[in-house]
Amino acid sequence: MKFVRFSAGGSNSYGIVDGDTVKAISGPGYSDYSETGATHALADVTLLAPVEPNKMLAMALNYGSHLHDAPAPERPEPFLKSETSLAGTGDTIRIPSDSEKVDAEAELVVVIGKTATNVSLGDAMDHVFGYSCGNDVSARDWQAGDTSWWRAKSSDTFSPIGPWIVTGIDPTNLDIEGRINGVAAQNCNTSEMIHDIPKTISFISKYMTLEPGDCIFTGTSGTAGQIKPGDTVEVEISQIGTLSNICG
Amino acid sequence: MKFVRFSAGGSNSYGIVDGDTVKAISGPGYSDYSETGATHALADVTLLAPVEPNKMLAMALNYGSHLHDAPAPERPEPFLKSETSLAGTGDTIRIPSDSEKVDAEAELVVVIGKTATNVSLGDAMDHVFGYSCGNDVSARDWQAGDTSWWRAKSSDTFSPIGPWIVTGIDPTNLDIEGRINGVAAQNCNTSEMIHDIPKTISFISKYMTLEPGDCIFTGTSGTAGQIKPGDTVEVEISQIGTLSNICG
Repeated sequence: MKFVRFSAGGSNSYGIVDGDTVKAISGPGYSDYSETGATHALADVTLLAPVEPNKMLAMALNYGSHLHDAPAPERPEPFLKSETSLAGTGDTIRIPSDSEKVDAEAELVVVIGKTATNVSLGDAMDHVFGYSCGNDVSARDWQAGDTSWWRAKSSDTFSPIGPWIVTGIDPTNLDIEGRINGVAAQNCNTSEMIHDIPKTISFISKYMTLEPGDCIFTGTSGTAGQIKPGDTVEVEISQIGTLSNICG
Repeated sequence: MKFVRFSAGGSNSYGIVDGDTVKAISGPGYSDYSETGATHALADVTLLAPVEPNKMLAMALNYGSHLHDAPAPERPEPFLKSETSLAGTGDTIRIPSDSEKVDAEAELVVVIGKTATNVSLGDAMDHVFGYSCGNDVSARDWQAGDTSWWRAKSSDTFSPIGPWIVTGIDPTNLDIEGRINGVAAQNCNTSEMIHDIPKTISFISKYMTLEPGDCIFTGTSGTAGQIKPGDTVEVEISQIGTLSNICG
């Protein structure tokens, strides 16, 4: 199933994509929703970020190809992203004028469906609702120079997620491609993750409760590409789709 | 005015403290609330954290006495705290069994009342709703050893705020005392902040939109004291009150 959030006729709604149609539902897909009866042509709606998370985390150093000279981390290395940095497909990523270098990072995003506190490895996947494409936009000068990564990773519009959440797929063998102006900048497969999704969820939930709608960016590969105003940046993941943003 | 959130008779509500009485209101104090007509004796209700923030930030290195050998930061140095780490007065701070050293940090908390995006120094205080006492609980081994401070500063129950939000006070000359088992561990005055509240709000809002209910812990002084299961930890701020928690 493909779950979206969309704007149509001046109001916002969650929905399910069925071919070329969107069926509106009463709440997010991970809640106890029902179809409202309203339908729209997919081409007629504006897609929003498909989730309204209370909390987002992202994984540092989770692909060997992104480690460069760093050692592989012994445990998952999450960091927090602010919920105000969320953006949807089609939204403009605003490149701050006072950062020297902003990169795009193509990543698989896990959306939590059920509250997770101290869950075991074996139970972790029961708490997943679905998967989306994410771009963990990163201002490298601030990442290097600030005490924390707050504005480096969480400036407004620095967390695009979309175009939808796909449920019922196996996340362990998905191809991820990041493109800038149509040219491939990053390529990897989710099988290359150092700490996989069950380990990540189980480890985080040992310390921090994960709630329905919370999002986890699962890490990026290789060397991320720099983005500048005017660029088009895409994150395509097999079995999910393509998240596309213009930089402004 | 003193704004609270409380539990009484099995349901939760926001309210205003009037002497020994709590008057229930229809929403948080910073919204367009009205009194519901319900009143309770303050002694009969269980106080909850007085705010339900979407986002919390805290300031690193914002008191000279806490810098030790570090240089004073040229700009505010925020970091994110997760909203799931929130706790209220009277709640138990859960000390993780696998951290070697957990400290309490007594801090003034600023609660945002109006959305702030790129606000000037001169306009910053118009976006403040009020002030509360906060404890920026910190696991020092994780703070030193992890890539980010996610679990060091945002494990469940690591962000007590309370007992209420006080509005209409001058935040520039408030005494803060942190106590562990009744013994003073930290003493400072908010006049000692390196980067004051207008500068902090203006700087954060240049990059990250602040929303009503968002909380900013404004930094801690001196050397914070270690807390262990069984300890009582208090944060008292003049003109506000005392936040009290037991560690478990």
